[in-house]
Amino acid sequence: MDYRRFGDTLIVRMDPGEEITDRLRAVCEKERVKLAAVEALGAVNDFTVGLFDLETKEFRSNRFQGPYEIVSLTGTVTTKDGEFYQHLHLSAANAAGEVFGGHLSAAVISATCEMVVRVLDGQVERALDPEIGINLFRFL
Amino acid sequence: MDYRRFGDTLIVRMDPGEEITDRLRAVCEKERVKLAAVEALGAVNDFTVGLFDLETKEFRSNRFQGPYEIVSLTGTVTTKDGEFYQHLHLSAANAAGEVFGGHLSAAVISATCEMVVRVLDGQVERALDPEIGINLFRFL
Amino acid sequence: MDYRRFGDTLIVRMDPGEEITDRLRAVCEKERVKLAAVEALGAVNDFTVGLFDLETKEFRSNRFQGPYEIVSLTGTVTTKDGEFYQHLHLSAANAAGEVFGGHLSAAVISATCEMVVRVLDGQVERALDPEIGINLFRFL
Repeated sequence: MDYRRFGDTLIVRMDPGEEITDRLRAVCEKERVKLAAVEALGAVNDFTVGLFDLETKEFRSNRFQGPYEIVSLTGTVTTKDGEFYQHLHLSAANAAGEVFGGHLSAAVISATCEMVVRVLDGQVERALDPEIGINLFRFL
Repeated sequence: MDYRRFGDTLIVRMDPGEEITDRLRAVCEKERVKLAAVEALGAVNDFTVGLFDLETKEFRSNRFQGPYEIVSLTGTVTTKDGEFYQHLHLSAANAAGEVFGGHLSAAVISATCEMVVRVLDGQVERALDPEIGINLFRFL
Repeated sequence: MDYRRFGDTLIVRMDPGEEITDRLRAVCEKERVKLAAVEALGAVNDFTVGLFDLETKEFRSNRFQGPYEIVSLTGTVTTKDGEFYQHLHLSAANAAGEVFGGHLSAAVISATCEMVVRVLDGQVERALDPEIGINLFRFL
């Protein structure tokens, strides 16, 4: 991974074998990012995405292996108890162009990941919503 | 729904049962947003997306019900006759990770929607293009 | 095509029959854009997307024809040897709502394309990585 900051924006290159959520955490902790909007594209060969089933309170995940191009990766960086918290959703296309996605658990880069992290000046906390079962924005 | 403004950006949390286009309209009208770029992620359980068929001038829409994760939600806020106008496209993944989408008519939130609205200082109007049959950017 | 600049951002309308990568190149060359993040939505009727297979070093591409709505178009504008270089990934939905995508080679607009180009003050070069076989960010 390498990156540079241009004004409010980090332009990040992640490299083969690196895991996206791990690297985003690293760059945000190093740059002390508390609040950001994230977009990316790239290529992965092993990713796990899922869906939180509100009825069963169960996270149903799917793992995809083989060559895939990321066609969307959108998310937010906020904080929970003051610490780094990321929420990313990803979709990716296979060699036939078919697209699969969901809430991103992990994705390993095959070729590259080009990520744009727009840092905002402020902080948004999260708190567990016991009824819904997930951590939601709690504005200070 | 709740939100905060950080510089040029609104960070919005929409809540279960709320409809995304309705809530985006509300926040933009309250904040007097005339021009913005929108990105979001989240989870929905009832959404209608479609495709405008230029040959038949017919909007062909598909309704999806059940648990879905939004994997992309991209759009613009502009004005038509000076009034709020939104244009959003959405795609979402089911429990198997399969992705469906199109032009967004309506989407009801199941868990949360985290929306990033980047407000631009200016205005872009729309006008109906009679040949194409849709409202296109008309720059002042 | 027509566009306006609002602060750091170009709001672009591309028109029927225009090809997206051709028009993005034109607007960036005219506006002397060296570094930018791109998002868009719209409708296309002929697009070619693909996947770079790292094992065979082969670009496997798929062409889709007929009415499609762009549900995600994400990318970066950088430079290679100081000249304009774009890297875009696209996904699009057909009339049934099914989504297909990948690395964007070309896409012809049917109705409109609404593109948001956020220009950053700086430059990121690219260089061919001989092992991976593609042009990666090389930070100056």
